[in-house]
Amino acid sequence: MKIALAQIEVIPGHPDKNASTMLKSIKEAKSNGASLIIFPEMSIPGYLLGDTWEQESFLRDCESFGRQIISASDGICVMFGNVAIDWKRRNNDGRVRKYNALFTAKDGSLVHPDSMPYPFIIKTLMPNYREFDDTRHFYSLQKLARDLGTTPAQLISPVTVYMDGTMWNIGGLLCEDGWSDDYSIAPFDLLQHTGHLDFFVNISASPYTLGKNNKRNRVFGEEVKKAGIPLIYVNNIGLQNNGKTIYTFDGSSTVYNTSGQPVLMAPAYKSCLKYINLSNVNEMKPLSLPENDDIASIHHALHYGISHFLHDIHMERVVIGISGGIDSAVSAALYADVLSPENLLLVNMPSRFNSSTTKDLSAQLAKNLGCKYTVMPIQESVDMTVEQLERTPITFTKDKSESHLNVSSFTKENIQARDRSSRILAGIAASFGAGFTCNANKAETTVGYSTLYGDQSGFLCALADLWKYQVYALARYLNEHVYKREVIPQGTIDIVPSAELSDKQDVDRGMGDPLKYPYHDYLFKSFVERWHKATPEDILEWYIEGNLESQLGCQGGLVKKYFPTPKDFIEDLERWWNLYSGMAVAKRIQAPPILAVSRRAYGFDHRESQNGPYYTQKYLEIKEKLLRQS
Amino acid sequence: MKIALAQIEVIPGHPDKNASTMLKSIKEAKSNGASLIIFPEMSIPGYLLGDTWEQESFLRDCESFGRQIISASDGICVMFGNVAIDWKRRNNDGRVRKYNALFTAKDGSLVHPDSMPYPFIIKTLMPNYREFDDTRHFYSLQKLARDLGTTPAQLISPVTVYMDGTMWNIGGLLCEDGWSDDYSIAPFDLLQHTGHLDFFVNISASPYTLGKNNKRNRVFGEEVKKAGIPLIYVNNIGLQNNGKTIYTFDGSSTVYNTSGQPVLMAPAYKSCLKYINLSNVNEMKPLSLPENDDIASIHHALHYGISHFLHDIHMERVVIGISGGIDSAVSAALYADVLSPENLLLVNMPSRFNSSTTKDLSAQLAKNLGCKYTVMPIQESVDMTVEQLERTPITFTKDKSESHLNVSSFTKENIQARDRSSRILAGIAASFGAGFTCNANKAETTVGYSTLYGDQSGFLCALADLWKYQVYALARYLNEHVYKREVIPQGTIDIVPSAELSDKQDVDRGMGDPLKYPYHDYLFKSFVERWHKATPEDILEWYIEGNLESQLGCQGGLVKKYFPTPKDFIEDLERWWNLYSGMAVAKRIQAPPILAVSRRAYGFDHRESQNGPYYTQKYLEIKEKLLRQS
Repeated sequence: MKIALAQIEVIPGHPDKNASTMLKSIKEAKSNGASLIIFPEMSIPGYLLGDTWEQESFLRDCESFGRQIISASDGICVMFGNVAIDWKRRNNDGRVRKYNALFTAKDGSLVHPDSMPYPFIIKTLMPNYREFDDTRHFYSLQKLARDLGTTPAQLISPVTVYMDGTMWNIGGLLCEDGWSDDYSIAPFDLLQHTGHLDFFVNISASPYTLGKNNKRNRVFGEEVKKAGIPLIYVNNIGLQNNGKTIYTFDGSSTVYNTSGQPVLMAPAYKSCLKYINLSNVNEMKPLSLPENDDIASIHHALHYGISHFLHDIHMERVVIGISGGIDSAVSAALYADVLSPENLLLVNMPSRFNSSTTKDLSAQLAKNLGCKYTVMPIQESVDMTVEQLERTPITFTKDKSESHLNVSSFTKENIQARDRSSRILAGIAASFGAGFTCNANKAETTVGYSTLYGDQSGFLCALADLWKYQVYALARYLNEHVYKREVIPQGTIDIVPSAELSDKQDVDRGMGDPLKYPYHDYLFKSFVERWHKATPEDILEWYIEGNLESQLGCQGGLVKKYFPTPKDFIEDLERWWNLYSGMAVAKRIQAPPILAVSRRAYGFDHRESQNGPYYTQKYLEIKEKLLRQS
Repeated sequence: MKIALAQIEVIPGHPDKNASTMLKSIKEAKSNGASLIIFPEMSIPGYLLGDTWEQESFLRDCESFGRQIISASDGICVMFGNVAIDWKRRNNDGRVRKYNALFTAKDGSLVHPDSMPYPFIIKTLMPNYREFDDTRHFYSLQKLARDLGTTPAQLISPVTVYMDGTMWNIGGLLCEDGWSDDYSIAPFDLLQHTGHLDFFVNISASPYTLGKNNKRNRVFGEEVKKAGIPLIYVNNIGLQNNGKTIYTFDGSSTVYNTSGQPVLMAPAYKSCLKYINLSNVNEMKPLSLPENDDIASIHHALHYGISHFLHDIHMERVVIGISGGIDSAVSAALYADVLSPENLLLVNMPSRFNSSTTKDLSAQLAKNLGCKYTVMPIQESVDMTVEQLERTPITFTKDKSESHLNVSSFTKENIQARDRSSRILAGIAASFGAGFTCNANKAETTVGYSTLYGDQSGFLCALADLWKYQVYALARYLNEHVYKREVIPQGTIDIVPSAELSDKQDVDRGMGDPLKYPYHDYLFKSFVERWHKATPEDILEWYIEGNLESQLGCQGGLVKKYFPTPKDFIEDLERWWNLYSGMAVAKRIQAPPILAVSRRAYGFDHRESQNGPYYTQKYLEIKEKLLRQS
């Protein structure tokens, strides 16, 4: 029996476009002799829609497109994801009852799963961590079973479909249903207990995360091997977002043989129909999947994400402020690979603090990329602003007394940053018919080492989920593997990272950022990305135990090198923790959308409140003890 | 028996401070002869903490402070809210098991609820709508019962405490447990079925929302009346946030007699211990609570929210850009009531498009408030920016050809807005040791009628949850009831709302914003605040049915007046829907935090994706039919 894996692009919130893609795919699968075509989870509405689920007219529209797909199933079985609505029941928020559902249609009618109370399969396990909000909108099979006074085991059942002269028992799963390790029930197991199964189908809407595909092959592989039944995993491609956090969906739809080995995998980020003959799966050669190549995989996600996002917001031209430093250079090289050169405009905006070293590197980068380039100095405007602020009298209307402002050197640094972005770049972008980028990396974003309405602004932060070491790795990858020549000048890779906003940040004298990236990258990562988030208490305990570097995953010897005494170490720790949970939260609230690649991106994935830094009692105790001893 | 309602301020994420407040309150209650003191839900950790719940060291710290409170219960019974951790079990995200719990302590030990599997009461109903994310972090009693192969009815049980020579059966509830209308079980009812109950206790962390207290009195009143058992509701005060959306907690802790009538209510936003003698509740005179005074209630919330937020972020001085228009004037009057006059600096920033009318109104406002005032014109800087953008050559490095930008009049409008905020206000604020405000209202915020890094910027949007009609009502309220004199000049209330960014926006000729607030306020409200969100399909159906104005709640006759033909109506509808679901989403992602007062505020309450506008099939059909007919 020939089965089509429909790895389509799902456009979130646009059921009309998705239904149209699906109808075309069904036609093609039919003409290629497929008996079954499988679409991803929520293939009609899309998955990350915010509170659009609260629009009843949108729900009716999805139902209506669902009926179109069902009608198109003459002569073929179609399995697809959609929101299923029970207009007579309510969710716990008082709104209409919604299920995240897998529909099976054949010859114009729905095929009723054997023991489900509805003619569709309901998602049992609801992810409610990271960027996922399933429980906010959808009623799970577990809740439904409880309401009906029964158990999921009594409801979970295969769909039985007559295809190619045979009855097939298909075990249908929705995404998280296949990842049951942390739940009290496992739909995988419950399906097997229902009797004979011919194969599993898992329809997913699973965003790309570094390392997730390897993990899925492991988790699904083990389950499948235990069951001895093949599994077809279908995931969508495309770009979906929760506002602040943008996710690429890489597809990578996979067929697993009865030993749990992948025998077919659709290419990442490619819209395609892949066919498999079910009776052949055990004769197919298992794929030898390459070891994870982190930077290649990140580059693929960023390249896809940037080009897709530009397409989605109808932006054809881009402006990038380049400083001669690494972040803006990598950003420029990424965009240059997506846009034609006349649509990319790089802008260098020197003040008196910018070295000829970095000015030359900027010009070199633009030349290497063959794009548009301009230099717009900011010194005159900055001087004028400072002069206006200091000269203009302020009147206290209560007693008519006058006073004047004094602009500090720190404030002058921020005035430069805002002049560049809000005055020059925003103005150029509007006149060039473009948007301008934010080039902040994840280390800067973690501690707010940026100026609001200055370098923290832009229409997208493409690098804000990459640590500084990943930005460097990406620079080398772009030169070696994408452009295959030195596009990002070696000088940009070699100089110290520096904001060049004052005399103290002189790249020619090796004076730059206060961040010691080889250590701070990993320290910050432990605050954000560890499944059990680290706090100063954990860090200080590891420091005392002498295993901090191995816990963080950074190079050995750095801690002693950077922080000769416990006091130095603690001052550094508290400085960044205070910023991370203080001012940086305020900055992230107003930051542009972030393209997610890691297992924990800022925004809707890592949710945070502006509550200020906190130190536990135990931290204060061990800190005091340590300082007393030393 | 004397009971103390401890309406304390809970500081989110600072268990040390909360525990200290609680210990003081316990001491005071003891010295006043109370036998029982009741604290709010999550009184130790706070409630809105984002993903801080993923820090295990924070959880241990909360447990430790919980033990301090238990130890302090000698001679008094203490009921309090805290996170309860079962370190041996896991949540469905694989992290440690957490419950939102109500602890009862007496004489240094916990009192075990009769049938609970733990020595505390577990929250049964988990709100997972609006700003609430309970299910993300906490395991509900329903889930626990399922895992144990039992039902909530078997576990829900009173705590029995010996006080004042008698055994008391107390029915303990946590917040949502008392709001069970949309759930399949009602903890209120289940508690009654356990046998004799003496009284209910509901501990809450319930943010202020316009009209919620009246609704609670109705909902709780009915339940209590049915049960014939008094109820003590204890809510905290303070300010908590989810990053983008900031909530005031008004307390308003209430005692209901056996007929469900409120007999005691603690004052809103006041930290206090209120005492009640339980045997007296039916002899106390029921309170005659005032009808809702919307604007007074909103003003109270804003006043508390602004002063508290300034305190939380250690900001003592504020800068406000004032235009002579209503929004910035109301903002100034609100802040002036919170700050001493020397710490408030108003700034008028005229360009050549600003009328002497509005310039005079600005000066008048500053004089009326007796604060600091300055005028910093922007024309010179704007001209310089335009000149620099147009003069500087752009080189296409590929072929060395040169070109120049042309700055459109629309771009010039935005350059003005950014010059004011990012150049002047941000610079002044930094030099004045202050933050500057964003004065956008909810109508502007809905459709992005604002400039990013311009008037859309600031440290807080205090008015962004108020429709324009509410801003006007607040202006009158401030003059009449707060200042009791004309602080906001009548001229500011009378002129047309206008951005004054071009010749076309001339207030002296009555030319202003494209928004027709008396209609658009209500149209936009239907997009955002209706429990079932309206879309163009609903709007157009109501328009055709002739009941649009009553559906929206706006004045009759406006639609015909503003839109003579169906074509005009549809053009307007689509114009704003496109902005609301398009560019405005992008702007809200980068907007400052919003102070929430309505039943649906932007940010974490109304979650949204940047997916672009969508029109349902049915909308397109009825639109076509309507246009064909007319």
